Order: sequence, then C-alpha cells, then structure tokens
Amino acid sequence: MKNDRLMKQIRFIIEIDRLKKVFRRNIVIGTIRNENDAEHSWHLTIMAMLLSEYSADRNIDILKVIRMVTVHDLVEIDAGDTFCYDDKANEDKAEREEKAANRLFAILPEDQSEEIFSLWREFEEGETPEAKFASCLDRLQPLLLNYSTEGYTWQSPEVTSEKVLNRNRFLEKNAPELWEYAKEIIEDSINKGFLRR
Amino acid sequence: MKNDRLMKQIRFIIEIDRLKKVFRRNIVIGTIRNENDAEHSWHLTIMAMLLSEYSADRNIDILKVIRMVTVHDLVEIDAGDTFCYDDKANEDKAEREEKAANRLFAILPEDQSEEIFSLWREFEEGETPEAKFASCLDRLQPLLLNYSTEGYTWQSPEVTSEKVLNRNRFLEKNAPELWEYAKEIIEDSINKGFLRR
Repeated sequence: MKNDRLMKQIRFIIEIDRLKKVFRRNIVIGTIRNENDAEHSWHLTIMAMLLSEYSADRNIDILKVIRMVTVHDLVEIDAGDTFCYDDKANEDKAEREEKAANRLFAILPEDQSEEIFSLWREFEEGETPEAKFASCLDRLQPLLLNYSTEGYTWQSPEVTSEKVLNRNRFLEKNAPELWEYAKEIIEDSINKGFLRR
Repeated sequence: MKNDRLMKQIRFIIEIDRLKKVFRRNIVIGTIRNENDAEHSWHLTIMAMLLSEYSADRNIDILKVIRMVTVHDLVEIDAGDTFCYDDKANEDKAEREEKAANRLFAILPEDQSEEIFSLWREFEEGETPEAKFASCLDRLQPLLLNYSTEGYTWQSPEVTSEKVLNRNRFLEKNAPELWEYAKEIIEDSINKGFLRR
C-alpha cells in the first residue's frame, strides 16, 4: 500500500484496540466483570447525545463533546486507569498520561495527531464549556453504574460518601439538573447501605 | 425526582448498559475474548473521526455518522448479534430488530425516541451518504480485527474469501481508497492462510 497517510491512520486504529483491555474499577450491570475504557467511552458518547440539554452552557458544540469523550481515555492504554479516589496514584497521573499521549498520538498523520492531542488537552484542562460538560458525564456515568450495582466500587476502604459528593459537586455549576439527580441517588445509596456515610 | 424527562433518559442510559454484554464473532486483539457491541461502536466512532476524508461523498455530516454508529447496534440488546455470514439467522433479522427498536427506543422521551429511531432506520436503509459511510466502517472494522487475529472469525465453516470480498465490495463505490486497502489485506490474509481461497 502506497498510501502512507492511510497506513498511519490504520496503524493507530489497530493500536487503540488496546483500550478494550484497560479495565476500570466499576463493573458492568448484572455481571461481576469490570467495565473497560472503550465501553465507558461509548456510554459517554450516547449520554452526550441525550443529555446535552442539561449543560449549564446551552450553546455547547455537541460534536466536540463527543470527539472529546471518544478520545479522553486513550492515554490510559499506556498509563492505566487511575482510580479517582486513590490519592497516591493520582500524584504522578498527569506525567504518566502526558508521556502516553506523546507516544500514541504520534502514530497519526501530523494534522490528526495535533487534533487529537488538542482535544485530549482541552478535556484535561477542563476550562471550555465542552470540556466541562464532558467531565460532568465522565463523573455521572460511573455514579449511575455504582448506583445500579449496589455500590460495587464504593466498597473500597478509601471511599466515603463525602468524597463521592465532592467529586460530583462539579456538576452543581456545570449541569445543575444532573447535580440534583446525582445528590438524590447518592443520598439513596447511603440509605440503602451501598455507600458509607 | 420530579423531572420525568430526565428519569426517562436515565432509565434508557442504564438499560443500554446491556450492549456491553452483546458479544460479536470477532475477538479483541491479543486476547481470546469476544468483542462486544459497545466496544465495537466506540471503535467505529473514532474511525469516523479519522477516516471521513475517504468517503466518496466528501460533504458528509460527521456528527450524523457518529450518532449513527453509536446507536446502530442497540437493537441487538434484544435481538442478539447476527453473524453476517449466517444466511439462516439473517432471514428473520429485520423482524427481530424492528421489535427490539420499538421496545428500547420507547423508553426515551418522545422527541429523542423518534430521533434515535430515525438514525437507526437511516443506517439500516443505507441510502444516505452518512449511512453508506457508516456501513463502510461497520465492515472495515471487523476486517481489521480479523486481519490482526490471524482470521479468527474466518475459521467458521461458512466463511470463504469470496464471501468476505463480496461483503466488503460495498466499499468500492462508497470509500474507494478504503476498498483498495481492504482488497490488499484480504489477499494478504489468503496468502498467510488466515482465510480459505
């Protein structure tokens, strides 16, 4: 094949198949099998399609949110999933992920490499309305899965209801209706014994 | 929670977690574990982001292609995955999937139910440039995975290189550069013994 550009794109598409082997802390509903990053990213895409009306900024660019959630976890192919309540592992997370981004995205043709890098960077910096909304979804999705699996992830000793509330409080400003709902299911989870008070 | 609209959306988002348990014939590269529909759909989304320049129609709406591939397999939650080379199973596929669409999409608020139904219908009918390109990706992705796993799916007795070529010939008109590449890797697969001639 002489199409050098296409060959780079295909190499990348095959390389990132590995995202299906990066496992998260939560499980798939009705199983005892950990969810992986590819499944999680797909779930965020459909949530972006359905819930964008709740973004505090009503003029967000949905295509950008979707592109962002689709690539936001790719760096974990090298860096691994870092549990959000594990303070120690979070210390060198940024450095590990930066290194991963440099290796992975360089597989692509230069223009697309820059495009994906900049989407990932924007998500990480969390300053634009699209990055903020993508981040809301990235918090709400595991909350829904934990609520639907009797708080599977929340059984880890480092997790408390205060930490879960604080992590999701990000929704208060950026997706107020989703925050109201999040508070309700966190409270209900405490009442049902899924989450320690 | 009094927000009836949000409750319907959340119910749907939780219901479709089941897509992660619908397994396809091919495996994830480097494993002996079947890929599931959620992973497959995520992979198509990122392929849509990266490969749209190869669509025969250069003016396709990428957001629509992405929304289409994100929802295209949801009906398999009820209808199951139908192996494309299994002629018998394909006889009642349309009927099974229509029934699934009616049940599943009705969980959503009416406007979104109609929106997802119409995206799914457009994909199935395959007549618009977006549906055609989405369908190209839906064929190319398992081809890439099979090529990368020594033709795992192709070991089934009903598969021949002629059938694989015919299925992918859809790319010829709709994504000519991708068809050139597909032909090459099919030929290479035959030479390597991954696929019977």
